[in-house]
Amino acid sequence: MTLKDNHGYHMSAEEFRRHGYNLIDWLADYALDVERYPVLSQVAPGDIRAKLPPVAPQVGERFEDVMADFERDILPGITHWQSPNFFAYFPANTSGPSILGELLGAGLGVQGMLWLTSPACTELETHVLDWLVDILHLPRKFKSTSSGGGVIQDSASSATLCALLTARERATRFNVKDSGTTGRLIAYGSTETHSSLEKACAIAGIGVQNLRKIPTNDRLQMDPAALSAQIVQDRSAGMQPFFVCATVGTTSTLAVDPVAEIASVCEENQLWLHVDAAMAGSAAMCEEHAALHRGVERADSYCFNPHKWMFTNFDCDCFFVADREELINTLTILPEYLRNQATESGEVIDYRDWQVPLGRRFRSLKLWFVLRHYGVEGLKHHIREHVALTARFAKWVSDSPDFEIVVPPNLNLVCFRYRADNDFNKKLVEALNRSGRLFLTHTTVRGEYCLRFCIGQTNTAESHVAAAWRLIEGTARQLQAHLDAEK
Amino acid sequence: MTLKDNHGYHMSAEEFRRHGYNLIDWLADYALDVERYPVLSQVAPGDIRAKLPPVAPQVGERFEDVMADFERDILPGITHWQSPNFFAYFPANTSGPSILGELLGAGLGVQGMLWLTSPACTELETHVLDWLVDILHLPRKFKSTSSGGGVIQDSASSATLCALLTARERATRFNVKDSGTTGRLIAYGSTETHSSLEKACAIAGIGVQNLRKIPTNDRLQMDPAALSAQIVQDRSAGMQPFFVCATVGTTSTLAVDPVAEIASVCEENQLWLHVDAAMAGSAAMCEEHAALHRGVERADSYCFNPHKWMFTNFDCDCFFVADREELINTLTILPEYLRNQATESGEVIDYRDWQVPLGRRFRSLKLWFVLRHYGVEGLKHHIREHVALTARFAKWVSDSPDFEIVVPPNLNLVCFRYRADNDFNKKLVEALNRSGRLFLTHTTVRGEYCLRFCIGQTNTAESHVAAAWRLIEGTARQLQAHLDAEK
Repeated sequence: MTLKDNHGYHMSAEEFRRHGYNLIDWLADYALDVERYPVLSQVAPGDIRAKLPPVAPQVGERFEDVMADFERDILPGITHWQSPNFFAYFPANTSGPSILGELLGAGLGVQGMLWLTSPACTELETHVLDWLVDILHLPRKFKSTSSGGGVIQDSASSATLCALLTARERATRFNVKDSGTTGRLIAYGSTETHSSLEKACAIAGIGVQNLRKIPTNDRLQMDPAALSAQIVQDRSAGMQPFFVCATVGTTSTLAVDPVAEIASVCEENQLWLHVDAAMAGSAAMCEEHAALHRGVERADSYCFNPHKWMFTNFDCDCFFVADREELINTLTILPEYLRNQATESGEVIDYRDWQVPLGRRFRSLKLWFVLRHYGVEGLKHHIREHVALTARFAKWVSDSPDFEIVVPPNLNLVCFRYRADNDFNKKLVEALNRSGRLFLTHTTVRGEYCLRFCIGQTNTAESHVAAAWRLIEGTARQLQAHLDAEK
Repeated sequence: MTLKDNHGYHMSAEEFRRHGYNLIDWLADYALDVERYPVLSQVAPGDIRAKLPPVAPQVGERFEDVMADFERDILPGITHWQSPNFFAYFPANTSGPSILGELLGAGLGVQGMLWLTSPACTELETHVLDWLVDILHLPRKFKSTSSGGGVIQDSASSATLCALLTARERATRFNVKDSGTTGRLIAYGSTETHSSLEKACAIAGIGVQNLRKIPTNDRLQMDPAALSAQIVQDRSAGMQPFFVCATVGTTSTLAVDPVAEIASVCEENQLWLHVDAAMAGSAAMCEEHAALHRGVERADSYCFNPHKWMFTNFDCDCFFVADREELINTLTILPEYLRNQATESGEVIDYRDWQVPLGRRFRSLKLWFVLRHYGVEGLKHHIREHVALTARFAKWVSDSPDFEIVVPPNLNLVCFRYRADNDFNKKLVEALNRSGRLFLTHTTVRGEYCLRFCIGQTNTAESHVAAAWRLIEGTARQLQAHLDAEK
């Protein structure tokens, strides 16, 4: 890269076109060829850094060389979340229209902190999130045309934090925001609630000791009676219960908390109810799964992640509140340099007051592209396909004499184990992931180490699921034979 | 969009190629044509939403139709941050290599929460941030090869929050994280510190009343003697000072706090020192501006935003700490489903423990692309060009009998006003922005309303700055004539 007369060191429009086409081609090929690579990167700690020069280049380099280095030095360190053989954690499925939406957003380079700084960035987001209220059978109160509204957060962690903060201020009449006096606030989740609630309690000054992890039933769902009893106990100890997080689809086993029963406890005790439906929420668009959202009409806030199971690349968490004023009052700070007529008129939404950071990308573009490309019909089709594949996989597991299902499978997750000890199952997971042919993760249920098999990547088809099952069975058989031989 | 045999409703690789090429062309043309559009969107609240259908499409639509709707319905609601005539707030300059880096990151769709979930996502980030320590003349202790390390946050707001949280835990020996007992903690900024510090105090349970806004001198720099006196006063009132945020380049006027003097006060009192160099930090790569970072070698944490003035699209804030263990201990929560050997070995970085959210994009790709494409030399060239253009603009202003400079211009910002009352200057800003030919914002300095003119967009050249000055002068003259006629 050398200094050019017209535009200094910048990439010219013609160069951008050329490199852009090549990169689009690379990504199209990547999507076709991704099965060539080991799903889980096989590098050791430090391997990638060891290939990189110790100091940055003083003089610019050709884009072709950078891409060549990417392929040679970086790609081996990628774990391929977009592989159809990725069954770990949760899906982070993306799609053509989503990638193009992200590209358009990056190219426009707008900053959506205020309505004024790009009105379309705010209004498209508000509008598309109102669409989603209908699509997901959520209550009307979450719409911007009612008392509430939706906002895109980077993650469910941030959504939960914003819900917790707003509940904290409601409970203390802004005593924490103003004076930092937290009093003796107590938050509630279950033993299965996502760790982000604990993190939010740490961040918000509630203290992790003041998060009660309510026990679950044998389906790993929060026990509303135990919740109620704990609240009574805390109150009589002089504490102030203020917040409950219910989960629709826990991370570990996809258990669905009894939201309606929990809502009754919350109403009785005037607690904020937040519902975290990070992955499972997407399924509620299918009529046969709409009951997932039973009780959510009584929640104060709700979130789900299109960046998990709705073909929209990270980051895209949709966070809804029933009362936007409370959220805004909790997070607003208005310095002089951000003052403007539109804000002061009260006619517009300034999303900086709905989130922790000030700045924000134009993330609704990708969500809008996805909804327009697939239509609700297309999204439902693919979610139903994943659920059907999961049922088929679960059948194979339960038909096998060597394996057992650990909890009844739900939607797109199967938790199962080989009929042997934890150590065997741990070795099985390690051997499978080392093969590079698939990637799955584990959890423990009642002390039992088990395999989590989650189906939701964009291009996962029956052939991938069937091959995975054959590999799991075969690998277990080999491991068993190896152990038998050692005896 | 109809159901296809092979891949359901998904966009095929061939379609992705076709639409991708077209979008790359659109963006290349946009960069060339952006001056056609009014810089500040001229729509009224609700205009954009009014064009969008009330419900989402049931059936998928052609990508060409979505792009046509984007151009017709969304584009008028865009404020063009990438216009060379954008002089408002701060730049959010992007570039070809950055946009392509974001595209590649979106296409790979990896989740970088743990080292394991994509080792290259973590290692490239750590490595490039180590590079930046050298490039920006920052202290070695901020490197991962020392006791510290860097991480990409979405924004300086989030970086400041993470610094504040870690300082809170250091000061209370984890009493807030654990038990929520905040004690009587007091944080310090100046009257000019960014509003994100106030927001962080609200979020972290410190309370905005416990943030002291130390007065500034006539250059709007924090007064270290006043800071010291306030700390003495707070201690004698039984409060616990714990955190100071110094600013290198304030949002309002780009004032640079005396970091070294503030560091002495912090050392004497054992307070955490965070340095916020969000925009100005980039300039420190130029030897003639390296003194901007004088004193930063004594700070506990530091951040600057490549997404402001380093040709990297939002979001990309680089946050450095001197002691990574403290940060990690503050933000870590380790549930079973995230446990893995690499994490437990202690040999790797898991960036989820360096930030509020759990998930994260592959943001270092765009930063790496930018550094490789421009080289340090290219970045310096363009920063120097912006600084030179700003000096030229400031000269025109100070040579004009009708205008006055309000504070001595620094780097790429000029704060000035027409020699008339606040109301006149406010009308001047409104008239200029309504013209669509440029966009600038305002601030108030000692009660005086003034125009902020910030130069830093990628394609801003002398011709744009000169045209802006002619427009400002001409518009002021017209406004004055109009007022004179009314008398």
